[in-house]
Amino acid sequence: MSDYIHPQRDAEFVLNELVQFDQLCKATGQDEVNAELASVILTEAGKLGNGVLAPLNKVGDLNHPTLVDIDGQSGVESGVRETAGFADAYREYMDGGWSSLTGAEEFGGQNLPNVLGTAVNEIWQSANLAFALCPLLGQGAIESISHHGSDQLKQAYLPKMISGEWTGTMNLTEPDAGTDLAAVKTKAVPVNDHYLITGQKIFITWGDHQMTDNIVHLVLARLPDAPAGVKGISLFVVPKFMLDEQGNPAQRNDAYAVSLEHKLGIHGSPTCVMSFGDNGGAVGYLVGEPNKGLAYMFTMMNHARQGVGLQGLAVSEASYQHALEYAKERIQGTQKDGSRYSIIKFPDVRRMLMQMKSSTEAMRALCLVASAEIDRGNSARVELLTPIVKGWVTELAQELTYLGVQIHGGMGFIEETGAAQFYRDARILTIYEGTTGIQGLDLVGRKTLANGGQHLAELLDEIAEGISRFEALGGQFDLAAQQCRIALENGIAARQWLLDNKQDLSAPGSASVSFMMLFGYLCGGWLMAKSALQAKAKLDAGEGDPEFLNTKLTSAQFFCEHMVPRTQSCLASIQAGSESIMKLDELQF
Amino acid sequence: MSDYIHPQRDAEFVLNELVQFDQLCKATGQDEVNAELASVILTEAGKLGNGVLAPLNKVGDLNHPTLVDIDGQSGVESGVRETAGFADAYREYMDGGWSSLTGAEEFGGQNLPNVLGTAVNEIWQSANLAFALCPLLGQGAIESISHHGSDQLKQAYLPKMISGEWTGTMNLTEPDAGTDLAAVKTKAVPVNDHYLITGQKIFITWGDHQMTDNIVHLVLARLPDAPAGVKGISLFVVPKFMLDEQGNPAQRNDAYAVSLEHKLGIHGSPTCVMSFGDNGGAVGYLVGEPNKGLAYMFTMMNHARQGVGLQGLAVSEASYQHALEYAKERIQGTQKDGSRYSIIKFPDVRRMLMQMKSSTEAMRALCLVASAEIDRGNSARVELLTPIVKGWVTELAQELTYLGVQIHGGMGFIEETGAAQFYRDARILTIYEGTTGIQGLDLVGRKTLANGGQHLAELLDEIAEGISRFEALGGQFDLAAQQCRIALENGIAARQWLLDNKQDLSAPGSASVSFMMLFGYLCGGWLMAKSALQAKAKLDAGEGDPEFLNTKLTSAQFFCEHMVPRTQSCLASIQAGSESIMKLDELQF
Repeated sequence: MSDYIHPQRDAEFVLNELVQFDQLCKATGQDEVNAELASVILTEAGKLGNGVLAPLNKVGDLNHPTLVDIDGQSGVESGVRETAGFADAYREYMDGGWSSLTGAEEFGGQNLPNVLGTAVNEIWQSANLAFALCPLLGQGAIESISHHGSDQLKQAYLPKMISGEWTGTMNLTEPDAGTDLAAVKTKAVPVNDHYLITGQKIFITWGDHQMTDNIVHLVLARLPDAPAGVKGISLFVVPKFMLDEQGNPAQRNDAYAVSLEHKLGIHGSPTCVMSFGDNGGAVGYLVGEPNKGLAYMFTMMNHARQGVGLQGLAVSEASYQHALEYAKERIQGTQKDGSRYSIIKFPDVRRMLMQMKSSTEAMRALCLVASAEIDRGNSARVELLTPIVKGWVTELAQELTYLGVQIHGGMGFIEETGAAQFYRDARILTIYEGTTGIQGLDLVGRKTLANGGQHLAELLDEIAEGISRFEALGGQFDLAAQQCRIALENGIAARQWLLDNKQDLSAPGSASVSFMMLFGYLCGGWLMAKSALQAKAKLDAGEGDPEFLNTKLTSAQFFCEHMVPRTQSCLASIQAGSESIMKLDELQF
Repeated sequence: MSDYIHPQRDAEFVLNELVQFDQLCKATGQDEVNAELASVILTEAGKLGNGVLAPLNKVGDLNHPTLVDIDGQSGVESGVRETAGFADAYREYMDGGWSSLTGAEEFGGQNLPNVLGTAVNEIWQSANLAFALCPLLGQGAIESISHHGSDQLKQAYLPKMISGEWTGTMNLTEPDAGTDLAAVKTKAVPVNDHYLITGQKIFITWGDHQMTDNIVHLVLARLPDAPAGVKGISLFVVPKFMLDEQGNPAQRNDAYAVSLEHKLGIHGSPTCVMSFGDNGGAVGYLVGEPNKGLAYMFTMMNHARQGVGLQGLAVSEASYQHALEYAKERIQGTQKDGSRYSIIKFPDVRRMLMQMKSSTEAMRALCLVASAEIDRGNSARVELLTPIVKGWVTELAQELTYLGVQIHGGMGFIEETGAAQFYRDARILTIYEGTTGIQGLDLVGRKTLANGGQHLAELLDEIAEGISRFEALGGQFDLAAQQCRIALENGIAARQWLLDNKQDLSAPGSASVSFMMLFGYLCGGWLMAKSALQAKAKLDAGEGDPEFLNTKLTSAQFFCEHMVPRTQSCLASIQAGSESIMKLDELQF
C-alpha cells in the first residue's frame, strides 16, 4: 500500500492539454503561476503523499481512532485520540505549506489556482483517504467563513485555519435530519455578543482529534424565533477552545465528541457524534445573517462535492496501481514450453485493467476540467458539472475498486492484501455530501429544468464540436468516434425527454440517476476524445514522450469503445419513464 | 437481521409456473412428490431459516471463529472453535433432516428433486451465508464420493455425510495453484491400502470446527509417478478422524487447520489453511482412478457453481428485505401540510427498490430453472446455463447489495445497521468456485465454441418463442417486449460475432464477461416475460392471489424496461473486440 506513486505525467497532461493551465493563469491574472511551477509543486506533493501519507493508509485502517473518556479527576482531557502517526504526518503536511495552497493571500494563503489545488489534493486522497478527509472538510469551513463571516470572524479564525494550525469541521446532520435539513433541531440562543448552542450532530468527520490545538466547528442551528423548515437555519462558528484576547485557544467550549461510529471503511478518520451544550451551552458566533445558513451551505457545496468526486478518482487510482502490481507479479498460467506467466497476459485481466486505467484518466480529466471552471468563474458550467463529478465519478469508483479486488482473485477477499480497503473506503463516496440520488435530482432539477435545459444545451454544443474533430481523426478511432457520436445523440435525446416529460412529477426523479450517469459517460468520452486529439497533435509535431502519448491514444480508444456505449442503457431506462417505478403501492413491495 | 422472511410465494410461483414442478416430478418418476409437499417443506425450512439461522447471521459476523492451538499436555484438542451458537443451530438443521433432503435413498437420503433442494437452500443462504456454506461444500464432497468412490468408500462415508453427522470439505487451492490447478504440489504416496498425503491447502472453507465428530476432506494431490499438469492430479478422501472397525471416528488423522484468514466478509465461516502430513503423512483413500481428479472435480462443478449463483440470489434477497424495511420506516420528507413521510415515496428510492425486487425475482427464476434441468438430465442446457447462473447472478448481486447499502444513506456505512454485512459477504461470490472471468471463458469456450454455438442457438430459439408470446400480450408490456426483442437480437448478434471472430485468439477472452452478462440479462428478461405471461393467464382465469400476480406483472415490466436494455452496452463492448484491450505492452500500463 505504501507503493502508491502519483501519476504526475497524466495529471500534467490534463492540466496542460485539457485545462490549458498557462492560459488559465494568465486569464485569471496569476502571471507568476505556470505549468513549470505546477510541475514542481506536484513533484513535492508527490513526495509527501508517496512517502509519508500512503504508508499510514493501512495503519489507519487497522488502528482506529479511540474515544478517551476519563473523568475530570485524572486530569486527562477526554476526547478522540487519532491513529498513532497521523499527528506527525499532519505536522509535515502543515509545515510544508500544503494547507495554505489555495488560501487567500490576505490571510496568509498562497492564492494558487483552484485547479492546481485539486490536482495536489488528488495525491493526498489517493495516498490516504481517511487522513485527507480532515483538510478536505476544513476547506469547507474556511470557505463558509471566507464568504459569509464578519471581518472579525475572518481575522480571528482564517489565518490559523488556512495555515492548518487549526482544523475545521462541518456539523449539518442530526439523527432525524440527514438529506432533509429542514428537520434540524439544534438550538442557538443569543447571549450578549454570542449564542449558546445546544443539540446533537451525527456523522461529524474528524469532529475531534489531538493533531492541532484547536478545532473550528461550523454548526447549523435554529434561533428561537426562526421560521420552520430550511428557511430557519443559521450557521455558527463553534470553536473547541474559545479564544483569549490574544486570539489563542483558551477556555474549553461545551462541544464534545461523545461517541465514534464503527464503519465499513475510512477507519482512520474518526466519525463523531458531537454533543453541543451538555453543560449549559456551547459558545457560538453567527456567520453572516440569521436564517441564511442553508444558502451559505450551498455556496460551498460545489467545492465540497467536487472534492468528493475527486476522492472517487483518487481511491480508484490507488486501487488500480495495487491491482496492476499484483497482475504483473501473480504467476498463474503455464505456457506450452512449461514456462509460466503472470495473469496480466489474460485478456479478461487486461480488460479489467484497461477499464480501471482508462476510467481513472477520464475521471481525472473531468475533475480537473470542472475544477478549472471554478477558477474561470464560469458558474453556470460549474453548477452543471458538479453533480456529474460527484455522482458519476463516485459511482464509477465503486466498480473500479470492485475490479481492483477482483483482479486479486481469492487474495482480494483477504484483508491483509489491502485491495479490500480501497473497496470499503470508496463505499462512503456515493453517500456523503449528498447521495447519488441527490446528485441526480440536482442535475435534472436545479441544473437543467430550472434553466429550460439551456446550460446543458451549451455543454452539448461544445461536446458536439469536440466529437466532430474526433471523427475526423479516423484510423484506430473510427469505432471510438462512432460510439461518442451515439452517446452525444443519446445525451441530446435524454435532455429532450426530460424537457418533454416534466408534467409527470415523478419523471425527473425516476430518470435522475440514469440521466446523471449518461452525462458522466458522455463527458468522459468527450474528454478522452479531446485527450486523443491533443496526444495525436503532439505526436505529429514530434513533441512530448511518444510512449506516454501512444498509451493515451489506446486508453482513449478503449474508453470510447467499451465504456461510452453505456449511455445506451442509461437512455433506455430514462425513456422508460416512471410508470413501472411508481406503480406498486407500498404493501406490494 | 433476524427479520428475514423467506419469500415463499415467489419461490412457489417459480416452481409451479416456470419449472412446472408437478410435471417434472412425474417425468422423473417421483410420483409421490408434488407442489403441495414442496409447499409444506418450504414452510418448515422457512421456520428454521427465519427463526434460528437468521438471528445468528450478525453474531457470526461479529464473533469470528478462532483457532485454538494448545500443546498436547493440557489435553485440549487444538483446532477451530466456530462461533458460539452455530453448533446448536447445526444440530437443529441436522435433526430436522435438512441435510439429507436430496441425498440418495440407499444411503439414507430423502431423494427429493434437486430443484426443491435448491429452493430450500435459498433459505439457508439468505438467512446465514457463512453458516450455510458448510453444508453447501459438504454437498460437493458427497457428490464426489457418490459419483466416483468405491462401494467401500460410499458405505463408510456417505450415510453419515448425507445425514449431516459428518461435514465435508473441498481442498483444491494451494498458494501457487488457484485457478491454475496444474500447479498442485500436494503429494500422495501409496502405503498398503491407503496413501500418505503431505502438503498445504489454502482457502479451505469450514476446514475445521467442533460441530460434528468428524470432517471428511476431499483433497487433490499427486501420486509419485503422476504426469505433470492437470493430467496428474488424483482425488483423495482424508478424514479428520480415521474410522475404527465399526466405522466410528477413532484415531486423529494428520490433517490440521494451521491458521485462519482475516476476510472482508462471511466472517462466521472459518477459512482455513490446512496442513496435511506435518507429522508423517495424513491417511487418505483414493477416489476412483489415479490421475482423474480434475475430471472428477468437473462432474460436480455444475452443482457447486449453481450453488454459488444461488448464494448471489439469497444474499440479494436478504439485502432487499433489510433495505425495504428501512425505506418504509425512515422518515425524511415533509409534505406541504407539515406531515412527514418515509423515503419509499421518493422515485429514486423506488427505482432502487424495484431494481432489487425485480432482479432477485429474475435471479430466482433463472436459478430454479437451471437447477431443474439437472433433474431433467438435460445436460447440454445445464452446461450452458451454469456459467450464466454463477457469473451473472453473483455479479448482479454486487450491485443489488450495493443498493441495499445506498438506500440506507449514511446509516448504511455504519456496521451496526447490518446492510454493510450483506455487501461484504456478497463480495466473495464472484471469486470462489471460479471467478467471473472463468465463468465467461467457460461460456464462450467449452459451452459455445466447442459445439459450434449449437447449444446457445437452441436456447435462443426457445427464448425467441417466449418473447413472441410476450409481444402478443400488449398493453403495459409494449415497451418491455420491445426491449426483450432487442436483447434477443443482441444475443443472436453476440453469438454470431463469437463464431466469426474465433481466429483472433484474444477475442473470446476479451469478450467473455460481457458475453456472459449479456446472456444473463437476456435470460432474466425471458424468464420475467414468461412470469408475466403465466401471471396474466392466471389473472384472466381468476386463479391465484390477484395482489401477488399484479405485483409480478409490474416487476416483470420494470425488469424488461430498465434492466434488460443493458444487453446493448454488453454487445457494443463485445463487438469492439480485443484491439484496444490487448494493444498496450505491459510497461505501458
